[in-house]
Amino acid sequence: MKTRAAVAVAAGKPLEIMEVDLAGPKVGEVLVEVMATGICHTDAYTLSGQDSEGVFPSILGHEGAGIVREIGPGVTSVAVGDHVIPLYTPECRQCKTCLSRKSNLCTAIRTTQGKGVMPDGTSRFSRNGEPLFHYMGCSTFSNFTVLPEIAVAKIRPDAPFDKVCYIGCGVTTGIGAVIYTAKVEPGASVAVFGLGGIGLNVIQGARMVGADRIIGIDINPAKRAMAEAFGMTHFVNPDEVGRDKVVQAVMDLTGGGADYSFDCTGNVQVMRQALECCHRGWGQSIIIGVAPAGAEISTRPFQLVTGRVWKGSAFGGARGRTDVPKIVDWYMEGKINIDDLITHTMPLEKINDGFELMHHGESIRSVVVY
Amino acid sequence: MKTRAAVAVAAGKPLEIMEVDLAGPKVGEVLVEVMATGICHTDAYTLSGQDSEGVFPSILGHEGAGIVREIGPGVTSVAVGDHVIPLYTPECRQCKTCLSRKSNLCTAIRTTQGKGVMPDGTSRFSRNGEPLFHYMGCSTFSNFTVLPEIAVAKIRPDAPFDKVCYIGCGVTTGIGAVIYTAKVEPGASVAVFGLGGIGLNVIQGARMVGADRIIGIDINPAKRAMAEAFGMTHFVNPDEVGRDKVVQAVMDLTGGGADYSFDCTGNVQVMRQALECCHRGWGQSIIIGVAPAGAEISTRPFQLVTGRVWKGSAFGGARGRTDVPKIVDWYMEGKINIDDLITHTMPLEKINDGFELMHHGESIRSVVVY
Repeated sequence: MKTRAAVAVAAGKPLEIMEVDLAGPKVGEVLVEVMATGICHTDAYTLSGQDSEGVFPSILGHEGAGIVREIGPGVTSVAVGDHVIPLYTPECRQCKTCLSRKSNLCTAIRTTQGKGVMPDGTSRFSRNGEPLFHYMGCSTFSNFTVLPEIAVAKIRPDAPFDKVCYIGCGVTTGIGAVIYTAKVEPGASVAVFGLGGIGLNVIQGARMVGADRIIGIDINPAKRAMAEAFGMTHFVNPDEVGRDKVVQAVMDLTGGGADYSFDCTGNVQVMRQALECCHRGWGQSIIIGVAPAGAEISTRPFQLVTGRVWKGSAFGGARGRTDVPKIVDWYMEGKINIDDLITHTMPLEKINDGFELMHHGESIRSVVVY
Repeated sequence: MKTRAAVAVAAGKPLEIMEVDLAGPKVGEVLVEVMATGICHTDAYTLSGQDSEGVFPSILGHEGAGIVREIGPGVTSVAVGDHVIPLYTPECRQCKTCLSRKSNLCTAIRTTQGKGVMPDGTSRFSRNGEPLFHYMGCSTFSNFTVLPEIAVAKIRPDAPFDKVCYIGCGVTTGIGAVIYTAKVEPGASVAVFGLGGIGLNVIQGARMVGADRIIGIDINPAKRAMAEAFGMTHFVNPDEVGRDKVVQAVMDLTGGGADYSFDCTGNVQVMRQALECCHRGWGQSIIIGVAPAGAEISTRPFQLVTGRVWKGSAFGGARGRTDVPKIVDWYMEGKINIDDLITHTMPLEKINDGFELMHHGESIRSVVVY
């Protein structure tokens, strides 16, 4: 079949809207009509050429929502007409990691996904007979896409695509880090470094589970109002307290240190502050942000020997098929706010504008509606 | 009263055996006759002058066992005649940390203990009217010593002092890191870096809780036989496999990485290897070793984002009054082996020989018997 798509023809070039060919789903695969897709920093990172695993030409996009239009042989967990969210972190429920009950990082299709192809080693996308690569197993910048059955989460049919697509990455990454990775408990104190889209979702996750003190740290004072609306109780501006006094400021606000801290910046110096502002004895720091290639985190081992724990979180520690439908429910029940985070919507033809808004810090999230 | 003690008169000098004055226990304190004490690397570290918190003249020693000979006013948890192990990590059961249920690092007397004095800010030890400092709240290199009630663990009376004194530090540090900090489960794979006294106790802790694969890593092949006797199932010599291939060697032996790893070396490069040899998704690395002043650990944050956890452990995460008596029971029941770790015993007059044996790597543990 033919489908409209925004194609990343080469690193550093704007996406090009064109018609491409899409082969139907093979064994264990489904064809999904993407109804809406968010534009995420990770797409921009790969498009820039900095991502050493990036391959071109390819169809980016990994934060979508849509409808199953066709199923391949052997598919049993979803049916034509089901509403789904594509999963760049699949959940096969059979690999060593899924069975470990300790991690969401399913390995069933990791190797081929990383190479931009489907589990059989080939691409379903092509143009003029030349293959186009898939991206993060999703390629939601195409109106239609093919995914393995284990890489779609079935969601309730009344959830609006142009909102819940954000659960495909940003919302789950932030909220999940709080509830699945850190397991923040009621009454806890939480420090959130970086108040962009991920940071705001960490904040509302912390509020949802009953954290007492939710401290936001950002050098941009304009972030304060929105963060407070999402549940932030205290704001620390490193440029006001002094960049070398942020740790002390958090300690002062928490009576000795945060029970949990989250880095949502990708800056390795900030990651160190996030660890060191944690409470002696039990404070846990969770790295969410993606650091530049080659950057390293450091600290004195004494920080860990005296009880702090350093962790990371990918896709919020969420098991896609199990947990994503629950997060959709939470949105529909009003437990979490997505609407105010989606600051811009646009048609596919304007997708490059969405990248521009993100680069200039003018959007929290832009969503393409097909 | 008068008591015999080995006094650290100054940094870098041998200990001097002399008679010193000891004031009786004040409110909440107990007088203990030390029957035996181990000699630990930490004592040597402070004696060397490298410990920035070290004060002189002082009475070192923190790994003892003895008998309560007198109790001060208000003491209720122990009585004259009780057998006890002094605790450099006390357990007050009332401070924020004790009540957190998340950490053993009781803060009740931390400030004064760090300064070498009792909780009232004074020393019980003196000589010719000049005070001698306490050490780690224990000072077990004195035949008699005074401790706060919250800093002694009451143990069964049939346990031999010259063996269970080692539970006052080394045994608990190693076994505790396995069962209290890491919470290693049956069937787990474990990598232990450094096969000295702590490493051997980690190994036997892992065996006790039912770990499947217990991999020891040491550059000294002579450590292998003893480690195997304590439960090591596989040995990796970095000088044989290549120091930059240790991580891969552990991954190969564990089918993708260790479930738990322990650094018992204090070397920050080894700490990094210990983290990075952990399994993607859930591997936890526990730092036990004490690094040189100023040394820092580093890694790429990707190691944490993909599921590895970096932790530390002090006194094995054990709550002294609650857990130390249990470890004594385990020794008496034959669940753990201490006898083979105590390679030398000596009278107090020969205590400097014990330091020499340690410096030359000829002992696992030397014990002074009063």
